[in-house]
Amino acid sequence: MNEPLFSRYVLKVSCPDQKGLIASCTQVLAKAGANILDLTQHTTLDLKRFFLRAVFECSEESIGHIRNHIEELAKRCQMDWDLYDNAHTRRLALFGSKTDHCIYELLLSARDGDMRCDFSCIISNHHELENVASQFKVPFYFVSSDLDKPAQEVYLRKVLAETHSEALVLARYMQILSPEFTREWAHKIINIHHGFLPAFKGAKPYHQAWAKGVKIIGATAHFATEDLDQGPIIWQSVQQVDDTCSVDQFIRIGKDVEKRTLAKALRLWLEHRVFVFQGRTFIL
Amino acid sequence: MNEPLFSRYVLKVSCPDQKGLIASCTQVLAKAGANILDLTQHTTLDLKRFFLRAVFECSEESIGHIRNHIEELAKRCQMDWDLYDNAHTRRLALFGSKTDHCIYELLLSARDGDMRCDFSCIISNHHELENVASQFKVPFYFVSSDLDKPAQEVYLRKVLAETHSEALVLARYMQILSPEFTREWAHKIINIHHGFLPAFKGAKPYHQAWAKGVKIIGATAHFATEDLDQGPIIWQSVQQVDDTCSVDQFIRIGKDVEKRTLAKALRLWLEHRVFVFQGRTFIL
Amino acid sequence: MNEPLFSRYVLKVSCPDQKGLIASCTQVLAKAGANILDLTQHTTLDLKRFFLRAVFECSEESIGHIRNHIEELAKRCQMDWDLYDNAHTRRLALFGSKTDHCIYELLLSARDGDMRCDFSCIISNHHELENVASQFKVPFYFVSSDLDKPAQEVYLRKVLAETHSEALVLARYMQILSPEFTREWAHKIINIHHGFLPAFKGAKPYHQAWAKGVKIIGATAHFATEDLDQGPIIWQSVQQVDDTCSVDQFIRIGKDVEKRTLAKALRLWLEHRVFVFQGRTFIL
Amino acid sequence: MNEPLFSRYVLKVSCPDQKGLIASCTQVLAKAGANILDLTQHTTLDLKRFFLRAVFECSEESIGHIRNHIEELAKRCQMDWDLYDNAHTRRLALFGSKTDHCIYELLLSARDGDMRCDFSCIISNHHELENVASQFKVPFYFVSSDLDKPAQEVYLRKVLAETHSEALVLARYMQILSPEFTREWAHKIINIHHGFLPAFKGAKPYHQAWAKGVKIIGATAHFATEDLDQGPIIWQSVQQVDDTCSVDQFIRIGKDVEKRTLAKALRLWLEHRVFVFQGRTFIL
Repeated sequence: MNEPLFSRYVLKVSCPDQKGLIASCTQVLAKAGANILDLTQHTTLDLKRFFLRAVFECSEESIGHIRNHIEELAKRCQMDWDLYDNAHTRRLALFGSKTDHCIYELLLSARDGDMRCDFSCIISNHHELENVASQFKVPFYFVSSDLDKPAQEVYLRKVLAETHSEALVLARYMQILSPEFTREWAHKIINIHHGFLPAFKGAKPYHQAWAKGVKIIGATAHFATEDLDQGPIIWQSVQQVDDTCSVDQFIRIGKDVEKRTLAKALRLWLEHRVFVFQGRTFIL
Repeated sequence: MNEPLFSRYVLKVSCPDQKGLIASCTQVLAKAGANILDLTQHTTLDLKRFFLRAVFECSEESIGHIRNHIEELAKRCQMDWDLYDNAHTRRLALFGSKTDHCIYELLLSARDGDMRCDFSCIISNHHELENVASQFKVPFYFVSSDLDKPAQEVYLRKVLAETHSEALVLARYMQILSPEFTREWAHKIINIHHGFLPAFKGAKPYHQAWAKGVKIIGATAHFATEDLDQGPIIWQSVQQVDDTCSVDQFIRIGKDVEKRTLAKALRLWLEHRVFVFQGRTFIL
Repeated sequence: MNEPLFSRYVLKVSCPDQKGLIASCTQVLAKAGANILDLTQHTTLDLKRFFLRAVFECSEESIGHIRNHIEELAKRCQMDWDLYDNAHTRRLALFGSKTDHCIYELLLSARDGDMRCDFSCIISNHHELENVASQFKVPFYFVSSDLDKPAQEVYLRKVLAETHSEALVLARYMQILSPEFTREWAHKIINIHHGFLPAFKGAKPYHQAWAKGVKIIGATAHFATEDLDQGPIIWQSVQQVDDTCSVDQFIRIGKDVEKRTLAKALRLWLEHRVFVFQGRTFIL
Repeated sequence: MNEPLFSRYVLKVSCPDQKGLIASCTQVLAKAGANILDLTQHTTLDLKRFFLRAVFECSEESIGHIRNHIEELAKRCQMDWDLYDNAHTRRLALFGSKTDHCIYELLLSARDGDMRCDFSCIISNHHELENVASQFKVPFYFVSSDLDKPAQEVYLRKVLAETHSEALVLARYMQILSPEFTREWAHKIINIHHGFLPAFKGAKPYHQAWAKGVKIIGATAHFATEDLDQGPIIWQSVQQVDDTCSVDQFIRIGKDVEKRTLAKALRLWLEHRVFVFQGRTFIL
């Protein structure tokens, strides 16, 4: 006689606020014999929006049942929802340039199980990252900057399809993606900006920050959208600096902030904690 | 025709984990027509303990109904639970000594509505706080250190009863309360310790920290228990210091950390976010 | 026979970099029998600028001698320099509006000796601060917003002169000073901006920050210049926020960040640590 | 005709306080034509101890001259002093166990020039680190735990001598060194402890911290001495945690804090900023 197999799932729901939403959602889970381990629900009173994230365990047989009932509920309540099976490991494409500090951070975290994902490929317009790619046995793809943007993106699409990539991480990629491309991957491209957005958009943020004499520098992980450095912010971290620092030291200190911020943002996303609504995120 | 009066409540539940707990709780609320604004549920897998905090609005008529149904549920599931009416402003007794930095922080926060409570009295074994007490129109009570401990505590009990105090805040009180007294007010005495507990217990924590050459100092707000400086930690904050600081500067910087930490801990407690289980807190 | 009186002084020097500058400065002090307690010197290689701050003790008789020799040196080396006698307590005018959280922070710090200054007056275009002014026995001056800007500033100049004010602290003043006025008090007006500059300039920074979904809010203390919110930054502090916060909670949390940031900036300025060069500060 | 070669040096001085010390030191430098770029001097009034660190440039010919004059001065003033040539890259032996998060952090930082040192070898009682050692072309030495402690240390001494190691970094080494060994390498063994010392000494600090319900976890880099986890603290960092974290998450978050803290401490040491006096450090 076999024990039923219990797996872990995450349910995400976002919809206009109304009474009884949590009760309805949790009843669906309860009736299917699920055990909720963590649930967070928040309603922004400013926007009258309901957000819910629930982590639960249930038998594999029950999950189809749950899916159907949530789907019904969703229709009635105009819900955006998703149900993730933790057994599925997401496949992410890593985009980089020459520097590898963010790349190492992510590859090591994934290897150690500190973040649940597989890196499907490393894509770069330089050759510097081939070495780290081969160490971690991740396929490396070179996309030449000699190609025009549309040709580059034709190639990118091909690579992403072949490697079964589900999302993209721009780990200091330094190239601009076309509006069409960013729309195709809406809320599936996570970028790290080396400035404390919305200050210091654009190029050379550390030079801007130094000239301004800021006392704290920061980095911002956000979804890439067609508006450069304007997409919804996922995470931000900062580091105090003192005025004996040169721009070069800002850059050095910044590397540490960047990699931590990107890793944290990616972890939040992989844990299905990131909701996007009205141009900003809500992290539960 | 009158609109029903909607008030805001907080429900706190803690019990051994089992399936369907959230569904049961939220159904009680849904059936009574309540609207949940924020709900956080966490099960510690290490201790198999379920914690839930829900903020909801409902009509005043429905609340008795909710109370009865939760009570039934609690019996079945060995729940510890509480239901707080936000309309009720808690009355807190402030205990102090000579310094008033924590006292001012709390009185100003309460006055501005940044923290929801009334201060029922200020109690001290010195006269320095009479001035601030009179400015904020809070009754001041002097308890002489010439009295022996039992006599002091007889007087304290009398004052606390007369002022309808529901909990105590030790804002650098510097006196030790008897085990009997702390047990009477179990989990209702919030103390601020000027050290980053569990390091630097006991007297002169800043002197200890300086001698040790720590690079970060901190303060810890915790429930006072009969074991000095050992009660469950509610909140901790830290501040980086540099090695040109003297002990006096540690003390000065520490004042700022202390008052912030105590205010934050008190706010968490007033928002009914603090659960105590197996000697530690869980803040939701 | 009397002991010579030893007082404490701070020497600040800023000039184009060249060899032997520290040796020259410290020799002047050594020859006068001064004892240096703390000295920090930094040369920004980017700007080839030398900055020095020295705290020293010497007899009152020697200080004139030191002053003369530094003056000679300054001529040869194009030095900007200042020599401050710690025995002199600076007189600062506090400008406020309706909220008093920054005002209390500064008044209490000064009263406790945590910051060395006297507050010469409190000036406001509202009456709310009269109460705190009288508690701390600081003269209160009301400047009516019904007057036009020039008339207001005529009055301000008069008050500042009569109260022997040496510098101004804008503790959430909310009024704009004229370019002439800010130039008269160049690098002597310390303002607190309730945003993490250079992001969120102008009005309602917390509303801007919330709409943007930032994960960290901050405050910036800076010298007021004729360009609104653009003057050299003295200090910045931040606080992580979570996405269940409403704008109102941002404002509440921000109050705490603002007062700490302003107090820290003022303390740095009172300790003669703030150098201004090429539009930014260097804090030693 | 050749330009003289200018190199960069760091002078460190520590001695009982007296007048004229900075003037004497800086005059030696000035007379030799040196240009000071950064100088920090601090006298702890509590301990009457003078500390000075100066970064300067001078011709290679002058440095012998400077050395002789400082030596003379040192005799008169009971100075502990050192003069470091930045052209010399220090050789450090890395000790590890199975986990490589700290090892990668240091190897990558050194490779990128973010920290100025060479890693002479990696030493471990496990084989897990052989892979990273070979990637970074650092010789790997296995020291078997089957050997008794004295035999192990005979071997360690041999390896350290052969690899010309000047100092040791214990990057989660997990083995205890003998008192003799730590004395031989006094203030030249930098260890990372995965707890916020002086709290949580000894084994399983994250388990201790979780049971205590701390709200902030930390790591401490310190010099290893014969008293386990008691050596002078070089650097500490912390990370706020929330109560939904399990012990495993503490361990995961801690890895990040550990590697940052160790890297920062090592950087401070390599920049000759760390003074040890009376059992604690002073970082200038």
